[in-house]
Amino acid sequence: MTSQRRRPGRPRHIAYGGDASPRDQILDAAARLFVERSFAATSTREIADAVGIRQASLYYHFANKDEILAELLKRSVRPTVDKIAKIEQLVPPETHETALYLLALVDVRTLATARHNIGVLSRLPDVTNSAAFAEFRDDRAELVEAYGRLGGSIAPATIVDLVGQKRLGEMLVQVVDTVINIRSGGDPAGPRTAEAVATTCLRICGSDDHKILAASAAAAQLLEAFHDEPI
Amino acid sequence: MTSQRRRPGRPRHIAYGGDASPRDQILDAAARLFVERSFAATSTREIADAVGIRQASLYYHFANKDEILAELLKRSVRPTVDKIAKIEQLVPPETHETALYLLALVDVRTLATARHNIGVLSRLPDVTNSAAFAEFRDDRAELVEAYGRLGGSIAPATIVDLVGQKRLGEMLVQVVDTVINIRSGGDPAGPRTAEAVATTCLRICGSDDHKILAASAAAAQLLEAFHDEPI
Repeated sequence: MTSQRRRPGRPRHIAYGGDASPRDQILDAAARLFVERSFAATSTREIADAVGIRQASLYYHFANKDEILAELLKRSVRPTVDKIAKIEQLVPPETHETALYLLALVDVRTLATARHNIGVLSRLPDVTNSAAFAEFRDDRAELVEAYGRLGGSIAPATIVDLVGQKRLGEMLVQVVDTVINIRSGGDPAGPRTAEAVATTCLRICGSDDHKILAASAAAAQLLEAFHDEPI
Repeated sequence: MTSQRRRPGRPRHIAYGGDASPRDQILDAAARLFVERSFAATSTREIADAVGIRQASLYYHFANKDEILAELLKRSVRPTVDKIAKIEQLVPPETHETALYLLALVDVRTLATARHNIGVLSRLPDVTNSAAFAEFRDDRAELVEAYGRLGGSIAPATIVDLVGQKRLGEMLVQVVDTVINIRSGGDPAGPRTAEAVATTCLRICGSDDHKILAASAAAAQLLEAFHDEPI
């Protein structure tokens, strides 16, 4: 944001978007360092330096590096998970194609608009194993379940019998996660990507072109009701 | 393989399947430790101990830990990449559905039958960034390209125009990589999973039930011609 040399220990209240809270500034700097360099190779000292605060001040907000990562992981999945109930409530059950399309749009937006490509952090080996990230794994499981539930409700029995509802959910989430790869490759993931991903999700569930078009039109209208509130 | 206590520095020629070469024994032990614990937290000393050889003997086969990981990554993708040309040659161009189905079957088999779930290693941050793994990234790009080429040749223009051939390839690879998640979750990935994945790949490309059934039957017959030779 500024080309001034950053001096450790000197608070820079204007960093990362003007009036961001110290907590958000720490998260933003950590996200950038974790994504661009690596989680393992980044120290809390370096995060504090990047923000321009003392390491002791960082520990006032986060007990350790794992806690920072846990919060970043949360931000990569909760904005979507928090909207599942509203999506299922808003869309009539007979048009679950629209609900699945909408869920995919919201999910792509969550992954695509995060200031740094924090989706990659979900693939860290630590995240799969450590108890520190159990909450994220639960959130993620909830998301897979929602995809499986919506997908299973629109797919014909031939698909559900072969693939299974759980695996269907996993495959749909994998398709949405293509957004993470696109961002890693340096490309932006815009509305067109969102449409491609959501369309592909419906195709996996056996929807034909006619149903996909209808779901796309309906979901685009509903999407406006899903503005992100800061978490 | 044996319940004998392993003593460092003592060669155990019968480890990991009897007549495996020392090189393969090292790779197998490393794969197990990298997958079950972590790449970062595993030392070449620990790998040597697990095999029952001296660390110096390990360095006779591999210059460093990166070189071991590079070889494991290669084994997660080359068995599939090596068969692309043969698949495209064997299957007539007018039935590229069969070629894509077959590629997915071969790919699932590669990921599912590796002795340890080495597919997870492809997601390590080191693999994305370090020059040591450039060969793997090239192999992987070749695989994505083949999926995109085959998918693009069977999908209608509406799909190719919206998704793009490159993204289509990425999404198909993502679907196949569901196998890695299934194994991470402790479930086996058998022929049924392979069928579910391959079917889903065709659905993404807009193939109807009739074409999917025909491709499935034809690919099952051809698969026998693709036995894995040791690499």
